[in-house]
Amino acid sequence: MASPEIETLTQALSRLPGLGPRSARRAVLHLLKKRETALDPLLAALTAVSQRLATCSTCGNVDTADPCAICADPRRDTRQLCVVEEVADLWALERSRLFPGRFHVLGGKLSALDGVRPEDLAIDALVSRVASGGIDEVVLAMNATLEGQTTAHYIAERIEAYPVRVTQLAHGLPVGGELDYLDEGTLAQALRARRPVA
Amino acid sequence: MASPEIETLTQALSRLPGLGPRSARRAVLHLLKKRETALDPLLAALTAVSQRLATCSTCGNVDTADPCAICADPRRDTRQLCVVEEVADLWALERSRLFPGRFHVLGGKLSALDGVRPEDLAIDALVSRVASGGIDEVVLAMNATLEGQTTAHYIAERIEAYPVRVTQLAHGLPVGGELDYLDEGTLAQALRARRPVA
Ligand SMILES: [Zn+2]
Ligand SMILES: [Zn+2]
Repeated sequence: MASPEIETLTQALSRLPGLGPRSARRAVLHLLKKRETALDPLLAALTAVSQRLATCSTCGNVDTADPCAICADPRRDTRQLCVVEEVADLWALERSRLFPGRFHVLGGKLSALDGVRPEDLAIDALVSRVASGGIDEVVLAMNATLEGQTTAHYIAERIEAYPVRVTQLAHGLPVGGELDYLDEGTLAQALRARRPVA
Repeated sequence: MASPEIETLTQALSRLPGLGPRSARRAVLHLLKKRETALDPLLAALTAVSQRLATCSTCGNVDTADPCAICADPRRDTRQLCVVEEVADLWALERSRLFPGRFHVLGGKLSALDGVRPEDLAIDALVSRVASGGIDEVVLAMNATLEGQTTAHYIAERIEAYPVRVTQLAHGLPVGGELDYLDEGTLAQALRARRPVA
């Protein structure tokens, strides 16, 4: 009985992670009732992000500028590079505020099962960054899964000829755990105890 | 470390009911990564709703047209009028598809505590609708709270002089329960067993 526009909005919201059909309806109702304080600000924020959305051509982060805010920040330590599987992992590490360097997003992990090969990930770009110099340490922050660790070892081999220290997060991570779901304490411990790749 | 635009979007989303800061961040990340399938459709839907958002001048429903889709629907039974406290209650009853008539949204409930008086609610407008004729039954679908029932009794007195049957939802509703949170079965039972106001 709601208008087509409202139905469409409800469906668009219900497809967001964490919002089912019921909570989407409640959110829509809230937006309709609070035009000035909820709908208009959300619309303006979405418009602003949409107009400027960009994937960082340096690190693969998604942001509203290219280079992204992290790559453009002169206070970041350019000698430390943290390699992550996904943008979500980068954000999780950023929230912890523990890593002072820059990032490199692979866009996934090697997987025989899913047919993901090295050339499907931003691994050549990573090797180029390392080869161009100025980096002392590459922190491999893959998930503590079989595929994550396979990916870490593959990358360690690809960059072992370069004069960089290659480390990985300590396995204080729970086995099978994914970075984006961990609390900051666990992340902090794993980062502090990072060790050279054997 | 995210750009101001992304921070603003995250905050706007986190203020929606059911979305905390953490789920808002996950939703934003999803939007950024799925531009074509998530961000653009949501932006288009919000824009469409924003451009046409209206409060129905007949019943008080929020919709993208005035009169709203319910008031404009010729298949609705104009002889039955269901009075609810809030738009959320109207939507809850609509989802149950049990009420064939039209609605009247009060915009709240009488409350000595909160200083809500009859003139603060759309009660005069309700009396006018009843006075203008063509209505056989007014269903008072207030919440089963003290204030909801006080409001129902006040309205019953205001319209008792008119030739309409005044009923209220059966108290199959759990005491203290609010319409918008009830399952359809409970709503259906309460509506079927509605009874004249004593
Ligand atoms: Zn970047
Ligand atoms: Zn209406």
